[in-house]
Formats: sequence, C-alpha cells, structure tokens
Amino acid sequence: MIPTDRDPWLLTPGPLTTSVATKESMLHDWGSRDEVFIDTNDRVRNRLLNISESDETHVCVPVQGSGTFAVEATIGTLLPREGKALVLINGAYGKRIVRIIDYLGRDCVSLETPEDTPPSVSDLDKALVSDPTITHVLVVHCETTSGILNPIESIANTVASHGRRLLIDAMSAFGAIPLSAKTVPFDAVMASSNKCLEGVPGLGFAIIRREALEAAAGNSHSLSLDLHDQWVNMENTKQWRFTPPTHVIAALDKAIEQFDAEGGVAGRFARYSENCCILTEGMRELGFETLLPDNLQAPIIVTFKMPSDPAFDFSSFYDQVKDRGYVLYPGKLTVAPSFRIGCIGHLGADEIRHALKVVKDVLNNMGVCSGAPSRNA
Amino acid sequence: MIPTDRDPWLLTPGPLTTSVATKESMLHDWGSRDEVFIDTNDRVRNRLLNISESDETHVCVPVQGSGTFAVEATIGTLLPREGKALVLINGAYGKRIVRIIDYLGRDCVSLETPEDTPPSVSDLDKALVSDPTITHVLVVHCETTSGILNPIESIANTVASHGRRLLIDAMSAFGAIPLSAKTVPFDAVMASSNKCLEGVPGLGFAIIRREALEAAAGNSHSLSLDLHDQWVNMENTKQWRFTPPTHVIAALDKAIEQFDAEGGVAGRFARYSENCCILTEGMRELGFETLLPDNLQAPIIVTFKMPSDPAFDFSSFYDQVKDRGYVLYPGKLTVAPSFRIGCIGHLGADEIRHALKVVKDVLNNMGVCSGAPSRNA
Repeated sequence: MIPTDRDPWLLTPGPLTTSVATKESMLHDWGSRDEVFIDTNDRVRNRLLNISESDETHVCVPVQGSGTFAVEATIGTLLPREGKALVLINGAYGKRIVRIIDYLGRDCVSLETPEDTPPSVSDLDKALVSDPTITHVLVVHCETTSGILNPIESIANTVASHGRRLLIDAMSAFGAIPLSAKTVPFDAVMASSNKCLEGVPGLGFAIIRREALEAAAGNSHSLSLDLHDQWVNMENTKQWRFTPPTHVIAALDKAIEQFDAEGGVAGRFARYSENCCILTEGMRELGFETLLPDNLQAPIIVTFKMPSDPAFDFSSFYDQVKDRGYVLYPGKLTVAPSFRIGCIGHLGADEIRHALKVVKDVLNNMGVCSGAPSRNA
Repeated sequence: MIPTDRDPWLLTPGPLTTSVATKESMLHDWGSRDEVFIDTNDRVRNRLLNISESDETHVCVPVQGSGTFAVEATIGTLLPREGKALVLINGAYGKRIVRIIDYLGRDCVSLETPEDTPPSVSDLDKALVSDPTITHVLVVHCETTSGILNPIESIANTVASHGRRLLIDAMSAFGAIPLSAKTVPFDAVMASSNKCLEGVPGLGFAIIRREALEAAAGNSHSLSLDLHDQWVNMENTKQWRFTPPTHVIAALDKAIEQFDAEGGVAGRFARYSENCCILTEGMRELGFETLLPDNLQAPIIVTFKMPSDPAFDFSSFYDQVKDRGYVLYPGKLTVAPSFRIGCIGHLGADEIRHALKVVKDVLNNMGVCSGAPSRNA
C-alpha cells in the first residue's frame, strides 16, 4: 500500500479533484448583498459567456443546486407550456430530461439510440419534418453514462435549419469540449461548477439566448427554478433573489482564473485528452476493453467492460484502488456490465500513470490475470 | 479607521460569519458516492433530526440550493394538488410562500397582519372553522423581514386541534430558537445550512413527519425539488440522486460539531440573546429605536427605524461601517423606513460591542447627533 498524505485523487466525473488554490479561496465569508461578492458574481457570469463565445447573443443565468437543477430550470423556463420537446436519448441523462419534462406536464417525444451509438441526424431531420409541432430539441453533449461525445454541430445545424430551438445539456463537456455560439446555434447550454471548470459542487448555470429568455416570462413551473425571474432580478439589482452559494461561487471564480492560465478550453481539452489516452492505452495493456470505439469517446470519462476473470470483484477492486489513493466511479448507468474511470479534474499524466500502476497492482493482488471481458460482452 | 487583517464581520441574517474550523473543513475533495462522504451526510441528517427532537417521528431530507428551495420543495411535495393552503403572513417570507404556491397552481388563502404584529391565533382558529377545505397551514417562525418571533406553539396547537397540517419556515430560527417535535406538532420544518447552524450557504433541508412524506409520492411539481423521490433514493442507496454540494455539507458537519460543543440550541440561544441585548441597548444609547417591542423580538436580526437627522445617509453609513470591519444588512424588506443588523454567526459580545463603537464613530464622522427616528416613524 502506498502511503498518501493527501485526499485520494478522484477519477470521477464530478465532484472531482480541485486545486488547493480553488479550495483555499473558500476560507472567507462574504455578505451576499455586498459589493465584493457582487463583483465576483459578475465576473463569473461574464467569463462563462466568454467561454462559450456567446457574449453578444446570450446571457448567463446561474442557479443554486446541481447541474440537474440548471437543466430543469432551463427547460421549465424556455419550453412554453404549449410547446413540445424532442429529446435525443443515448444514456441516463437523456432519459432524465424526459423525466423532468414529464414532471412539468409538457408535451414530449424522444428519439433513442443505444448507449454506444450517437443520435442519428437523418432520423432527427425526419422527425422534425414529420412533426411541425415540435418546438424544442434537447440533447446531451457528452453522455456521462458511457462517455460518448454526441455530434453537437450537425445536430444544432439540423435543428436550426428547421427553425426549431436547441437546448444542450453540456454538463460534463462545458469548458473542455469546444462549443461556440458563433458556430453552433443554440438557445441554451446548461452546465455546472464542478465538472470541467474544476470548481466545487453547488452551482448550475445556463447560457441562454437573450431573445429566448426575454420571451420566457411566466413559463416556469417553479419560483426557485424560474430563470427569467432570476435573470431580471439579477440584472436589476446585481443580487441573487435567494441566498447564493457564496463559497461555491468564490471557488468557481478562482477555478476559472486557473482555467484561463491553462489556456482556456484548448488547454483543458489538451490535458484531458492526454489523460484519456494514457488511461485507455494503459488499461488496454492490462487487457481491459473500452465500451466505445475511440472515435466516439469524449476525453471526460471512459467506460470499461467488466472483466470476465472470476477472481475479479468490482467492489473489492474499488476498495483496494481507493486504499492506494484513487477513487473510481462506483455508479454504473450503462446497460452493459461495466465500470467507469474519469479523466477530468485537477490532475494530469503523472496521476493517471500512477493510477494505472495501482490498478495493475490490485489486479495482481486479486489474482486477476487480465482485465479482458467475456467474448460476448 | 481600524485596520483589520481579517474579513469584515457579517452582521447579516446569513450568509454569516462562520468559524475558521468550519471553513477549513472545505479544504478537501470527496467522491459524492464514496463512503467517506456518505458517512458525513448520514451524520448531518441525523443531527438535524436530533436538534428538533424529531428522531422518532420525522425524517430529514436535504436538498441542494438555498432555504427557499427547501421551502418550495417541501410545499410542492407535501401539499397535495387538491389540497388548500392557509398562509399566515407578517412579512416578506410569508408573502414568498404565497408566491411559491401560486407558481404551483394550488389553492391558497392567507391571513395577514402588519409586520410588527404576530398572527392572531383566534383569527386562525376562525379561519380553520369556517373553511374545512384548508388542509395545510404555513407560517414563518422568525420573520427575517422585521425580526419578529411568531408564537409557533399556540399556532401549532390550534392547527393540530383542527386536524390540519402545519409546515414551518424556520429558516432563521432553526438551531437557536427552541423547536421540539415533542411539544410542537408539525408535519415539516424547513431551514438551511447558513443561518443559526453557522454553516456556509448551499444546502436546504426539511424535517418531515415520516407518514406525511410516505403519503406524498407523486405530489411534486418538480423532479429536482421532489423530496419524496429524494428521500426514497437516499434511504435506498445512501446517496444523493443528483450531485450534492459536498463542501457545503462537510462544512455543516463541522459547524454542527461546534454547535454541540457550545451546548446545542440552549447555548446558541444564550449567545445570540446576549448579542441581541448588547446591540439593542447600545443602539438605543445612540438614539436609535427598534421597530419591534422587546417581547416580540427574536435574537436573530434587529430592525432599527431610519434616523431622521438630515445628515444621516444609509448608503454612506453602510460603507463607513464596512470600512471599519462590519457588514450590515443592506436589504430592506419592511414597509417602515428602517435598516437591519443581524446578531447571529460566529461572533459574540466583544464583536457586538466593537461594532457599536464603530457605529458611534461613523455617526460622529457624518455629523449625526442622534439615531432617533422622526416622531411619526
């Protein structure tokens, strides 16, 4: 066992490992209606717009809670009560969007593909042609279920060509996978503080086309989640309507400073891509197989098929890897027997290489010869 | 100007000044599905039940976001779609409850008294007699608008005597004003991490009667705010459905440890009461008048009538007091011209006494002879 004098590295899709500087930024208290906090909040909102190159067309509306709160708030605010949604599903987060819309009691259809298959743009095109009552299309940019990267640009262009509106759940992609409002037409992108921006959890946000938001008064099913009301009040008073998570926002401000220093989206994409390559290659050397082919894999989280060696037990594997300083992601969402390892957070090639040594060591300990799945997996 | 090498003291009703130990507890990262975090979450939920002496009858359901999120989530979950609410209003937070119920589209009536007047228990009684379709009564324990303490025990007993259900917004009272499920019948109490428990903001919670919650499946208007779904999942998996604010929960865990060391509710009530007495007495010596008589004043936040001296300007007063190390509460919610000073947070008699010196100094600087309001204020 390798002694560690620090927290285990989180190889999870968020909450993830944040930098010491990000955490230390929370060693203060702020009055939520005082100008020091107001300035921080303004700065964060503006930077989130910059990151998506949407300054001229969109506004940033933050909301308390997790990413799902931001997704629900955006749908509830932008999808009119007489609107109709088409949800592209290839994983648990697409399904969750349908569940949200069911709660709202608004009209919804879906197009589902298997979890290792991107949405079909031609099927989307056909669906929009055949049903002119569809007003909004919803898609997940990177489906954390499998780690698949969905073809956001061609989806967005198809939706736009039919004059429909696109809402993108970019939770685990925002900040690491390029997404520019200048080239990808969207009405909203939703994400959160604790994914590729490497902040701590507790804040969601939406980048919303200004005209769409201006037209959205009265749509929302919820006071807390009404992003139109949130936005109007924040514009008028510079303050949040209800107590903001001050420490989480301060941490995000600090995290974005480091994001900028790393070279923004390009810098983060490069580091995560390297992490992902090293991880995938190293695991394959140990016999593991990825669920996805490399051309569909986003450099965010990798799904590995469950090894068939009878000596392999995931729960014991997880515990032993954790004892050696790395927390894997215990949640399984795929249909296929599998487990996931994240490659995002404040960590790089050294940590991934060391994690691979730990995995090898633990397999040896367990008497597992190979990470290979069964032939029919 | 007194030099300060620390953050200003927050004389606000939350977010407030937290201890160094509470903030330092956030210098870690946790996997939200890992047992270390799961244990912390369990411990916090259990302690919140203990504090309200509701372990045997109620369950604790946390929810991401601010206190208002917890209030809306609880109402949406417990008030059936065919239910009818009676809201007791004597301030902005009572009005906010009505606004929430309007969003939900559920039936609602209210009984309003002026902001310096507690709800009338006999009017409540009459309203419940005359309208048997009212299923739930909602009241704010301490109305932060004015700082008034509402007579929760007699309200609760009246509601119970008519077989109706009581939901208490105890946001700024929980942990400092005694409230026991053993003596006060309630179906739910809602509060948050960043008030008298002295944690950081980002978490709301509700203490809910188990039978009431069990019967609440399918009521909620929102997936994110469905406390029945949140509870069932947390009981089954020990995990949050959606990413929890891990750092906020760790800070609350640490804050509750200090709460216990201070003697729990009794200890906190004693310190805040002393803060409130010193503040009120000192301000009166400077000519200020409180909005409320002492017998209605909760030891949480004190509303002072605006001074009539033409040399007094609140914005300048606020800035100068802040430059000397104390942040007052700039938000005004009362009808009467007034401002508010909080007496909660990780501070005591010394800080309040020093704040009074600062106030005196600033009044002198401004050329204000007395804090007295105009005669007809």
